[in-house]
Amino acid sequence: MEKQIRLNALDMNCVGGTPGLWPHPADETLRYNQLSYWTGLAKLLERGLFDALFIADIFGVYDVYAGDAGAAFRNAVEFPVNDPWVLLPAMALVTEHLSFGVTGTATYEPPYSFARRLSTLDHLTGGRLAWNIVTGYLDSAARAFGRNGQLPHDERYEMAEEFMEVVYKLWEGSWEDDAVRRDKAARVFARSEKIHKVRHHGHYFRMEGYHLCEPSPQRTPILFQAGASARGRRFAARHAECVFVSGSDPAAVAQITRDVRARVREEGRDPESVLIFCAIVVVADESGRAAEAKLADYEKHASLEGSLALLSGYMGVDLSSIDLNDPLRSREFDAIQSCVDRFSRIDPHRKWTFRDAVSRFGVAGYKPMLVGSPETAADGLIRWMREADLDGFNLEYIVNPGDFEAFVELVIPELQRKGVYKTAYAQGTLREKMFGRGPRLPASHPAARFRQDQNAPNLARISSEESGKLPRNSR
Amino acid sequence: MEKQIRLNALDMNCVGGTPGLWPHPADETLRYNQLSYWTGLAKLLERGLFDALFIADIFGVYDVYAGDAGAAFRNAVEFPVNDPWVLLPAMALVTEHLSFGVTGTATYEPPYSFARRLSTLDHLTGGRLAWNIVTGYLDSAARAFGRNGQLPHDERYEMAEEFMEVVYKLWEGSWEDDAVRRDKAARVFARSEKIHKVRHHGHYFRMEGYHLCEPSPQRTPILFQAGASARGRRFAARHAECVFVSGSDPAAVAQITRDVRARVREEGRDPESVLIFCAIVVVADESGRAAEAKLADYEKHASLEGSLALLSGYMGVDLSSIDLNDPLRSREFDAIQSCVDRFSRIDPHRKWTFRDAVSRFGVAGYKPMLVGSPETAADGLIRWMREADLDGFNLEYIVNPGDFEAFVELVIPELQRKGVYKTAYAQGTLREKMFGRGPRLPASHPAARFRQDQNAPNLARISSEESGKLPRNSR
Repeated sequence: MEKQIRLNALDMNCVGGTPGLWPHPADETLRYNQLSYWTGLAKLLERGLFDALFIADIFGVYDVYAGDAGAAFRNAVEFPVNDPWVLLPAMALVTEHLSFGVTGTATYEPPYSFARRLSTLDHLTGGRLAWNIVTGYLDSAARAFGRNGQLPHDERYEMAEEFMEVVYKLWEGSWEDDAVRRDKAARVFARSEKIHKVRHHGHYFRMEGYHLCEPSPQRTPILFQAGASARGRRFAARHAECVFVSGSDPAAVAQITRDVRARVREEGRDPESVLIFCAIVVVADESGRAAEAKLADYEKHASLEGSLALLSGYMGVDLSSIDLNDPLRSREFDAIQSCVDRFSRIDPHRKWTFRDAVSRFGVAGYKPMLVGSPETAADGLIRWMREADLDGFNLEYIVNPGDFEAFVELVIPELQRKGVYKTAYAQGTLREKMFGRGPRLPASHPAARFRQDQNAPNLARISSEESGKLPRNSR
Repeated sequence: MEKQIRLNALDMNCVGGTPGLWPHPADETLRYNQLSYWTGLAKLLERGLFDALFIADIFGVYDVYAGDAGAAFRNAVEFPVNDPWVLLPAMALVTEHLSFGVTGTATYEPPYSFARRLSTLDHLTGGRLAWNIVTGYLDSAARAFGRNGQLPHDERYEMAEEFMEVVYKLWEGSWEDDAVRRDKAARVFARSEKIHKVRHHGHYFRMEGYHLCEPSPQRTPILFQAGASARGRRFAARHAECVFVSGSDPAAVAQITRDVRARVREEGRDPESVLIFCAIVVVADESGRAAEAKLADYEKHASLEGSLALLSGYMGVDLSSIDLNDPLRSREFDAIQSCVDRFSRIDPHRKWTFRDAVSRFGVAGYKPMLVGSPETAADGLIRWMREADLDGFNLEYIVNPGDFEAFVELVIPELQRKGVYKTAYAQGTLREKMFGRGPRLPASHPAARFRQDQNAPNLARISSEESGKLPRNSR
């Protein structure tokens, strides 16, 4: 049987997905600050049996281009960007099965209140919560939180490792499974000897306290990670249950998925227990011709200035002085080169100028695009699944909700006809839906070491006074 | 015309309001971790035209009694306690007018992300947001956030003053009123010259960045404060639009309201522009006899152990070794004495033992209780309004939702008949509903000094590098 495609839709609590498309007449993302925008989207995605709505997030602004944030402000380039977490309960109320993944930084917020917020959401959604662990990449975010600048890249991951240790202790170790009685007749809410104080005195974090929440359905929410660097992939291999990858063609992504699965194995975990999702954009319509016309219309709305602001922020290089007519590969900067490489892989036979590349970026970012009829789109997705050894996709939009509507109405039925997409939701929490087991993390996951209600001899102490590095799994 | 009574209902994202009543057969607060509990409560309160649901919160646990948290765990004494903020969007979705006030500490979270969360909620609720500013009172909370213990009481307020300065700069100063264009035709989201970077380098907080949210309906949410100390009342007099007070009888509360209004005047603000709410518990039924029987039934459920755990935490004194049969006033400790004073004022003619006082505390806390028929309850509220110069009440429950249901079904119609309670909601944001003007803070409020789009000569600079103390209002 063909592998089943899993699907997340990607959005962000801001105006527009790709810079410059929000002014498109059919785009409704200006309503991002209204509840009805989000409840409508959630209902649409549940109609299409999407596994989850994934909400990206960023602190800070894109102020590298031309040395200020003007272009980002004019074009609403991921700014303003509202808090994503508070959206979930309203969407959970109008859906039954759709899950919600949210980007949260392991850099700027105290782990104690962060862990409480996520536990609360796992309770309120009935275990439909996922967390995308990020470390941030904008200096402006670091300054907004009172630092002089970001920590070095790899050190941000060291800090994130310690953040994970603290939240694992809180989620997995503070309350034993049978701590909660909720017994009205006996007048006992919880058994005090089953609730443990977490003590963490580490290099970056220090705390001492009980987790404020009784165990939620999943305890630790499903863990997403998208690190692209070697250090980021090592982090993902240890912690992530779902890994986000991106690349311009299936062969390039296949290299990444091989590497991710090999690293997961090195961490003592089952390589098939990690689900890999690739970012993709699908522009579908009744016919291939209609889809091409739709894309051509989208392209007219792309914003060169907005794209340059976003790209400059991604790369940390001010692109305001480049000559847009220069051919790609003509630049010396390493940072730009890596960007250029990505674009040139999208269509290696084309002579790309900077303007071409930025325009393409302004429509669909770095992501590969499938454009065509429902059958073309479905076949393309199946080909990506096979050739890149994927488990599913993070579907991004150009115009919202139009692109998601077209996908739900046209492409989902085609995928179902081809037998590669579910026709009903599975029962249970997101972890049970995704993996067919759960609702808690498996014993092979490093978080399981912090559980206090097992007699395993290698159990980590959640109350050790010395900085515990997260204990290594036996290999 | 008789002054109109304003009403907030009080709840907390935890099991039970008063310790020990959650096992009552009619109490549903064990469902605090389900969305339906909160949407049901919100709809009930909107049916009763309540102004707001106020959600209290606490970080940390009550671990003073007997030197550990066992009694708090067994009796679910404000523990577990989930995140309150994320409840709001689900309740906003099922209501149109009800507002939401949430307790948030100005001590433990970074102001940058805190300000974003509140702006997001003010957007999503259409300006139905209030914030109850607290500084915390549990050492266990301080340790959970990595400190050795709390700052001294008055210094916590100094820190809160600086926290307010940072969030005012973000909410009021970062975006000018005409910064947002949202112009699809012109392809301009915002005018970059109208968005200002906030720089704050103070004693407790340091940050540099643009507020991440476009202006929400109220910008600064309605500000609640409940400080009872002299320093706390000075803080409230400067910042609060609504002040929470409590006391055992109208005469005692009248002293407090006089003091609050005098302090507001000293801060250069109109004393009548601050609304004063008194905590109260109402046990109402069809007849006085039925109400008394209801209370007698509640009293049977009170938890002595839970009450002692909560009281010990409030007072910071371990009460586990007291003799419950001792008469009140026999103790030497100052901290207990202040507690004893409160109880003895409730009924000065009664000879209270410690056990009596703790049992009374276990039903309705320190709060005064009105028990009786709808007419008795309504007359009691009107008497409190007059004698204590109040603007309204924070209505607390013993059993939930029963006590709120009885109030909505029985007491609200009686108040309406007597002409002291609205028969329909006013339009607009919470600030417009509460004050008949808005939706922004008036120019006389200290936050207004941080607005950048006025030409007032005494305008505070939001970007001053030196620690700006919040500028004093002209008096």
